[in-house]
Amino acid sequence: MVDIIAKKRNGLPLSSQEIRHVVKETIKGQVQDSQLGALLMAIWLRGMNTEETMTLTKETAASGCVLTWPEEWNGLVVDKHSTGGVGDKISLPLAPALAACGCKVPMISGRGLGHTGGTLDKLESVPGYSSIQSPEQMLEILKSVGCCIVGQSADLVPADKIFYEIRDVTATVDSLPLITASVISKKMVECLSALILDVKFGEAAQSPTIEDAKILANSLVSVGVSLGIPTIALITNMDNPIGYCVGNSLEVIESLKCLEGKGPEDLRELVTRTGGYLLWLCGQAVSESQGAEKIAKVLDDGSALQHFRKMMEAQGVPSDIARNLNSDINLGKTSHVKELIVQRTGTVEQIHARPIGEILNSLGAGRRKATDVINHYVGAEILVKVGQHVEKGSPWIRIHYEKPPLNDEQREALQNAICITDRPAFKPPSLIRDIIISHDKNKK
Amino acid sequence: MVDIIAKKRNGLPLSSQEIRHVVKETIKGQVQDSQLGALLMAIWLRGMNTEETMTLTKETAASGCVLTWPEEWNGLVVDKHSTGGVGDKISLPLAPALAACGCKVPMISGRGLGHTGGTLDKLESVPGYSSIQSPEQMLEILKSVGCCIVGQSADLVPADKIFYEIRDVTATVDSLPLITASVISKKMVECLSALILDVKFGEAAQSPTIEDAKILANSLVSVGVSLGIPTIALITNMDNPIGYCVGNSLEVIESLKCLEGKGPEDLRELVTRTGGYLLWLCGQAVSESQGAEKIAKVLDDGSALQHFRKMMEAQGVPSDIARNLNSDINLGKTSHVKELIVQRTGTVEQIHARPIGEILNSLGAGRRKATDVINHYVGAEILVKVGQHVEKGSPWIRIHYEKPPLNDEQREALQNAICITDRPAFKPPSLIRDIIISHDKNKK
Repeated sequence: MVDIIAKKRNGLPLSSQEIRHVVKETIKGQVQDSQLGALLMAIWLRGMNTEETMTLTKETAASGCVLTWPEEWNGLVVDKHSTGGVGDKISLPLAPALAACGCKVPMISGRGLGHTGGTLDKLESVPGYSSIQSPEQMLEILKSVGCCIVGQSADLVPADKIFYEIRDVTATVDSLPLITASVISKKMVECLSALILDVKFGEAAQSPTIEDAKILANSLVSVGVSLGIPTIALITNMDNPIGYCVGNSLEVIESLKCLEGKGPEDLRELVTRTGGYLLWLCGQAVSESQGAEKIAKVLDDGSALQHFRKMMEAQGVPSDIARNLNSDINLGKTSHVKELIVQRTGTVEQIHARPIGEILNSLGAGRRKATDVINHYVGAEILVKVGQHVEKGSPWIRIHYEKPPLNDEQREALQNAICITDRPAFKPPSLIRDIIISHDKNKK
Repeated sequence: MVDIIAKKRNGLPLSSQEIRHVVKETIKGQVQDSQLGALLMAIWLRGMNTEETMTLTKETAASGCVLTWPEEWNGLVVDKHSTGGVGDKISLPLAPALAACGCKVPMISGRGLGHTGGTLDKLESVPGYSSIQSPEQMLEILKSVGCCIVGQSADLVPADKIFYEIRDVTATVDSLPLITASVISKKMVECLSALILDVKFGEAAQSPTIEDAKILANSLVSVGVSLGIPTIALITNMDNPIGYCVGNSLEVIESLKCLEGKGPEDLRELVTRTGGYLLWLCGQAVSESQGAEKIAKVLDDGSALQHFRKMMEAQGVPSDIARNLNSDINLGKTSHVKELIVQRTGTVEQIHARPIGEILNSLGAGRRKATDVINHYVGAEILVKVGQHVEKGSPWIRIHYEKPPLNDEQREALQNAICITDRPAFKPPSLIRDIIISHDKNKK
C-alpha cells in the first residue's frame, strides 16, 4: 500500500493490479483509514487517467454483488442519475413514466446532504414508503410494476461506501475520477441497457460553470460507455429552483402534479426530454423527440401516475393511500407558514436556488451531516417564475416551517434570493444547455 | 478539519490557529486517521512555508511536557541529531566526549528502520542498558554523569509520535516541513543551548544529493534558530559506511575504540568536528577548531571513555561490566563469520553503503518494520578503506551472521558493493562537505 500511495503521490498512473489490490484490500478491512485518506488526497491532487478511472470504476462495481435481470429485459433496463440540485424531483415522475412506456427502472437513489435534496427523503414523506428493498424484492417490483426507487443496499458496491465515507471527511469528494468511479460503479451493478446523467451546473450545482459540468459529463459518459453501458449526459442549468416547490413533501405533491399531466413547465420538460433520450438510447424510440412524446403521453393519460401508485404500494405504502395518491393529498403540514413579498415592481431575473436550499436546510428540510433527522414538511413554495412580471407587495415565496420563527438574517437572505429588474417579461430558456453523447453511441 | 484539509489541498497556507487546532485535536484523539492521512499527503504535495513549518514545530513541541534544567546549566545543554546513515555511530563517542568537556547532553535517540541503524539498538547490545529513562531520571544522570542517551518518552512530543506513525504508512515521511517539525520539535523540548544537525547526503542517505541535503539543512537551521535554539548543520557524505564496522554490537566496539583515542579516522574526524562546532556554538570554545581540539583531548586522555562508562552504569549496565567497557569486550557473537575476497588488484574507489546496510538488515541487524526483532551481533567488519590499494584475493569484508547461510544473491550484492579501479591510492576527502550556519548565529 505504501508503494502504491507513493506512486500516485509522485503523479504516476497506477496499474490495474494496483487499483484492484487497493479495492480488494479495502473491502477486507486490510487498508488503514490513514492510508485511504492519503491515497484519496493523492488522487484528488494528481488525478487519474481514463484507464485508471475505468479500472477503479470496474473494481468498485465488482466489490459487491451485481443485480441480474431476466433475459427478455435486454434493452429495457434504464436508469437516470443526477448530480443534485434544488427542487430536483425529476426521478419521481420519470421512473414511473419510463415504466409506463415498457421500460424496467431499478432506480437506486440517495439522500440529501447540504443544500440539495435527496429522492429517498422526498418519497419518505409518503406514509409507509420503504426505501430498503433487497435485490430479490427489486426484481419482484420490476416484474409487477416496472420501476422501483430504493436506497443503496449494503451488498451492492461496498467499496464505494467505504471510499465515500473517507472522502466526506477528507475534502476529497469533488475529484473527477472519484466522482466518476462512484457514480458509474453504482450503475454498473444495475446491469443497465441505457443510462442518462443529468449533470447540473450553476450557482446551486456541484459544478459552478458549464465548462466544469462538461468535463465531468465527458468523464462519466466515456467511462460508462467504455464499461459497456450506453450512456448520455444532459448538461442542465441549476441557478433557479426546478419547478415551484422545494422541500420533501412539497416536492412529492409537485411530482404528482407532473404525473397528472400538469405542474411546472420546466419540470415537465426535464422529465419528458430526459425520458425521451433514454427511450431513444435503449431503442424504444426512433428519436429523442419521439421518446419525449411517449413520455408526455403517459404523463397526460394517467398511466405514469398509475405506475407511481403501484410502485408506492409495492414499496410499503398502504393500499388506500397509494391508490389515491394525487396532488391534492395532505402529506402533513408545518405549524407555521409565512409569505414574503416582492420589494419592487419589475421582472423576475433570477431566483437564487442555493440560499433558498441552504435556509430550508437550516430550517430542517435537509441535513448538514448524514446523521441529522429531517422534517419532511419544511419547504418553500415559490409563487413566481423567472421571466415573470411582478408587482411590489405581492407574495413571491411561501415558507413552511416549525418554530423557532425565521430570524432576521434568514429573512434577509431569502429576500436577497429574488432578483428583480426593469427588463420586460421574458420566456426563460430551456434548462437543458448541452448534450454529451459519445461517438460510439452516435453510431448506434 | 475538513476545511483545513481543503485549504492545504488547494495550496493555501494554514494559519497558526488552524495548525494549533490540528495538533490539539490530534492529541485529544478528535481527528480521524483518514483526515490525518489526507492532510499529511496534502502537506507533502503542497508544502508549507517557513511560518507554517515554525508553527507546526512549536505546536508539536507543546503537545507534551518539556524538560527543564537547573539555571546554572544555561549555555551548557547541547545535542546532536543525524538524519541517519550506515555505520553512523557518532553519537556514542560524542555524547560522553561533550560531557567530559563540561556540557550536559540529554540525547534523545531513535531506533533503526530500513538500511540505517539506530543509536538505541546499538547501545542495547550492551547487557543491562535501558533506553527508558523518565525526565526525572534524565535530570539525575545529567547531574551525575553529564550525558544520557535515551529513547523518546511517551510524555514528550506525543503529537510527533502520532504524526510519525501515520506518515510511516502513508508515504509522507520525506516531506521537508514534516521532517523539520519532527526533528526540531523533539529538540525544542530538550531546552537546548546549542544543537548540531548532521544532514547526510549520498547513496545511503535520505537525501540523495548535496543540494537536497542543503535544502533540508537550511529548513532545519532556520526553523531551529527562529524558535530560539542556536543551530548549525553539517552536510556530510554518506556514500561509504562510516568507520569499518556496521551492525549494532560491532559499532559499540568501534565506538569504544574511538573513545580510547583510536579507531577509524573518518569517525574520529566526525566526532571531533561535530563536537567542536557544538562547543563553539554554545560558547565553550572560541572557535570550532579549538572545540575540536578539546574533544580530541578528552578522547585521548580517557575522560570521554570514563563518562561513557558512567553513563552506561547510570542507565542500567551492571557496574562490573560498565566500569570495564573497552574495545576488547566480547558483547556476543554470531554462529557464522564469513570473509569475502577482493576480485581484482587495484584501489578501492567506493564501498557502497546502502547494499551493505540492506543485506545486513535482511540478515537480522535491522528492521523492515518497527515491530521486527533484531539480532545485535549480526554485522560486518569492512577490512579496507576508500582510497586504499588492495590485492586480488585478500579479504575485504567479514560478515557476522546466523543461519541460514548467505545466499548467492546476497553474496553477489555484497561483492558488487566494493568498487575497485586502476586509479592510484588516494586520501579520501573529509566527509564534511559544507556547513550551514544561520546569519543570526554567525553574529553570535
